[in-house]
Amino acid sequence: MIETHRDGEGRVYLKGWTEPELFSVVLREADEAGMDFQGFKVRDEDTLTQLSRDLRAWGVDVQEIPAGDLDHCGRRMQFSTPTGHRFELYATKTYTGPWGISEVEPEAWPRGLRGIRVQRFDHCQIHGRDIEAMRDLLSEVLGFYVTEHVIDDTGKNLAIFMSLAMKAHDVALILDDRHGTFHHAAFYVETWENLLRAGDLISMTGTSLDTAPTRHGITRGQTTYFFDPSGNRNEVFAGGSTHYPDQRPYVWHDRNIGKAIFYHHQKLSEKFMTALT
Amino acid sequence: MIETHRDGEGRVYLKGWTEPELFSVVLREADEAGMDFQGFKVRDEDTLTQLSRDLRAWGVDVQEIPAGDLDHCGRRMQFSTPTGHRFELYATKTYTGPWGISEVEPEAWPRGLRGIRVQRFDHCQIHGRDIEAMRDLLSEVLGFYVTEHVIDDTGKNLAIFMSLAMKAHDVALILDDRHGTFHHAAFYVETWENLLRAGDLISMTGTSLDTAPTRHGITRGQTTYFFDPSGNRNEVFAGGSTHYPDQRPYVWHDRNIGKAIFYHHQKLSEKFMTALT
Amino acid sequence: MIETHRDGEGRVYLKGWTEPELFSVVLREADEAGMDFQGFKVRDEDTLTQLSRDLRAWGVDVQEIPAGDLDHCGRRMQFSTPTGHRFELYATKTYTGPWGISEVEPEAWPRGLRGIRVQRFDHCQIHGRDIEAMRDLLSEVLGFYVTEHVIDDTGKNLAIFMSLAMKAHDVALILDDRHGTFHHAAFYVETWENLLRAGDLISMTGTSLDTAPTRHGITRGQTTYFFDPSGNRNEVFAGGSTHYPDQRPYVWHDRNIGKAIFYHHQKLSEKFMTALT
Amino acid sequence: MIETHRDGEGRVYLKGWTEPELFSVVLREADEAGMDFQGFKVRDEDTLTQLSRDLRAWGVDVQEIPAGDLDHCGRRMQFSTPTGHRFELYATKTYTGPWGISEVEPEAWPRGLRGIRVQRFDHCQIHGRDIEAMRDLLSEVLGFYVTEHVIDDTGKNLAIFMSLAMKAHDVALILDDRHGTFHHAAFYVETWENLLRAGDLISMTGTSLDTAPTRHGITRGQTTYFFDPSGNRNEVFAGGSTHYPDQRPYVWHDRNIGKAIFYHHQKLSEKFMTALT
Repeated sequence: MIETHRDGEGRVYLKGWTEPELFSVVLREADEAGMDFQGFKVRDEDTLTQLSRDLRAWGVDVQEIPAGDLDHCGRRMQFSTPTGHRFELYATKTYTGPWGISEVEPEAWPRGLRGIRVQRFDHCQIHGRDIEAMRDLLSEVLGFYVTEHVIDDTGKNLAIFMSLAMKAHDVALILDDRHGTFHHAAFYVETWENLLRAGDLISMTGTSLDTAPTRHGITRGQTTYFFDPSGNRNEVFAGGSTHYPDQRPYVWHDRNIGKAIFYHHQKLSEKFMTALT
Repeated sequence: MIETHRDGEGRVYLKGWTEPELFSVVLREADEAGMDFQGFKVRDEDTLTQLSRDLRAWGVDVQEIPAGDLDHCGRRMQFSTPTGHRFELYATKTYTGPWGISEVEPEAWPRGLRGIRVQRFDHCQIHGRDIEAMRDLLSEVLGFYVTEHVIDDTGKNLAIFMSLAMKAHDVALILDDRHGTFHHAAFYVETWENLLRAGDLISMTGTSLDTAPTRHGITRGQTTYFFDPSGNRNEVFAGGSTHYPDQRPYVWHDRNIGKAIFYHHQKLSEKFMTALT
Repeated sequence: MIETHRDGEGRVYLKGWTEPELFSVVLREADEAGMDFQGFKVRDEDTLTQLSRDLRAWGVDVQEIPAGDLDHCGRRMQFSTPTGHRFELYATKTYTGPWGISEVEPEAWPRGLRGIRVQRFDHCQIHGRDIEAMRDLLSEVLGFYVTEHVIDDTGKNLAIFMSLAMKAHDVALILDDRHGTFHHAAFYVETWENLLRAGDLISMTGTSLDTAPTRHGITRGQTTYFFDPSGNRNEVFAGGSTHYPDQRPYVWHDRNIGKAIFYHHQKLSEKFMTALT
Repeated sequence: MIETHRDGEGRVYLKGWTEPELFSVVLREADEAGMDFQGFKVRDEDTLTQLSRDLRAWGVDVQEIPAGDLDHCGRRMQFSTPTGHRFELYATKTYTGPWGISEVEPEAWPRGLRGIRVQRFDHCQIHGRDIEAMRDLLSEVLGFYVTEHVIDDTGKNLAIFMSLAMKAHDVALILDDRHGTFHHAAFYVETWENLLRAGDLISMTGTSLDTAPTRHGITRGQTTYFFDPSGNRNEVFAGGSTHYPDQRPYVWHDRNIGKAIFYHHQKLSEKFMTALT
């Protein structure tokens, strides 16, 4: 990703090159790894006000963080989720256009990209206890819909994947007693050949690999996972199904979870299951 | 594409393998090539009723075609566009799930695919006179937004590309005195390597090529064009920018239109400019 | 691979589609897995006679197997190697041209390919005790040269990779007390995207996976391994360095063997190290 | 390509990153474009002496250019070909190993590559009158063999493609009254995706395009052509058949030459046919 800004508190603002606003990820120095919050942009300030009301009506406590707490970002409405995470909504962020190309007759890609050449933030996977309430909150108030889910023999949801538009998922919810924990943030590249390059770079640079390039069963996407120096797991993700709001979700059974997650190996590694932040 | 149905009038219903409903394209035998109409699915029957009212309020004449005119499709609301085309809205269509894979623990792709292995219908390009009125109709009533446009030195729009969600475009509007004409329908494949395969198959099968695999400037997508036996132009399309409703459109100037359309050749062929149906 | 013949003893003759002769692999039914012998074609019958003399002069016992023992194959000169394997030379085999394309104006690829679409046999990896003597035999008599090798801290060769022309290797020799054993046969596909397809098919068909698609350090090639129903390990291999006879070999140290073999994971699986036939 | 040296006469020495010697291409400033000579490396100085004798015995006039005429290169044996070109043989050149990677535990590719990331020189296409005599000289004295050829209705060779080892061709000979002329030099990249990148870069940098990325019928390779600032045509080439000395050549008819050269477009451009240097 590309560093676009640092603020007075030493926080680093980053983005993928296709993202039209100033940043999509903010890192701060901390004693332990993890995700402070995940933010979603809404259409405009009126929508932000209305959605805050809707969230409160649904029974969620919402707190307003004034503009300026993050540089280049308007007021943010923060709330705790049934999975024990902090989510935020905002409507205003500094607009810069994609990085490295013009908005007038843009070239096909920027010349100066380095490293894995991430295009954009893609999704997060978070773990917690009440994922079915989380699903209801996201679908009833915020317009998400379920694309795929994993159930046990009783039909209970062990994992729920939800999307806002056409992506295979914008958020992945995993049932887990480690309430409020974070599994990974995923960043998008365009092709399977880009994933080979990502895997090569992870190896060349001595970065801590979690899972080498392979395919997911769920989402059909292609993937590699690594740990950044803070200990957070990152995914590089490509492809993935196009999904539609009127499309029925795919169902997976937990007894075949290995193939559902890693389509080639058909089993989960200990590290993939246990390392959360 | 995959043939999924033939009706009593001899019409052939087709779909790409990822499309969850019974068909996305219907072909009928006719004396001349062309597109009868383009249909868009809306959320539900209530939305269909409301949008029909909105269209009429905007000044468009809307006619209802009862369910059953097309097999497996509910009532359709048809209207003429400022570009001289027929568009339709509908809310109900027979649901089958994607072709060749299960909705329970789907494999990554179906084994029995043949030919170019199209995933889904992607977009249409249509030509006509009043594309700015068309843009207003699509954005004000139907929720489209502009992703890219081509202007002349006076700022007049010569081409407007519009999307409904995240695709680089769902419809391309070209200013043209040949009012109400059709340039191409585009079908999606996943990768540049699939496009090589498509170009190879067009050659192997003696199909009439329009443009060999290459890249577009507009959309950044990868493309090849061919003529089907009826004389209609088809595009095989891969990649393409992800666009967002809050993203500013890219601007192209008509003086550089060659590179805008064909990023490598940087010029348009006579056939690409003149063959419309 | 494509079955091209069965002989009176029930042996099955196979080839990859680009191979111009009738077969490159022969399978026979047996009580246990393994490789009977590996054959190399030489220029002509005179060369075969001369090389047999050279082998004997080097100290190898050579036995002639008359034409007709294998269908469609001339006489074969068989000898035991310092690694405990049987190698053969032959000069004559039935010529058919590549499979599925004409020798006059061939299409880019055959339409009827199924499965992994292997192009050709690529190389074998064999294990045994005296790999340095094997290296000398192959280089001094048969024209091989070393492309890469793995050494321990004393400089002793633990693995030697040898090529005849421009490939990254035609044979891999591994120092191992399990004398005369067979690790894998490798078959070539053109691209990393073909390897994704191979990995997908291994999963879809319930085939026993050994290693999911990834990159090798040694050879820079891309790879996936699986076990066929007999229990023999097969590799699907793509890419790989171009090497030249006048090029110095690459050197790898056994202390970094994980990255040398599997460039992304950087470690060897137990199964990869122990399963030999 | 990578600049590795400049000599006292201002000549620039270049190489692709996988090439183990100091240079594979030398450019000199000149009043007009063209190729001075093409050199082939032979095994050693004794072989060089022997081949010079063989060439003279075949009836070719051979002149020795002493070591030092080119920096870092031993003596060169130069001769005129039946097609009106200068070819050279040499045995000694400064050895550096591939560029940007170590010969001990090399990484998969060098980090610092820029531009099209050419791996190596691949082949030349040259035009002249007596290509059948040229074929005989190359096969009888220098060990080349024919991989593919184009004939007219009388069976006369209009184009002959010849290889030394396993490549689809090392030299292409075209029958042409423009005796002793040069059509293009080709440089190798690994994948079709690299060719998309090459085509993109040609467009981005305003380089003069000859042919956008596509496939050849002859060789099955993938290709794009451009003109460098001197006016010489360059090809970026990927893939291509693996060929063997004991394999029969593919035959093409001049009446279908369009598809033979450009498998997708199936026709030759005026510029491709006329621009020679």
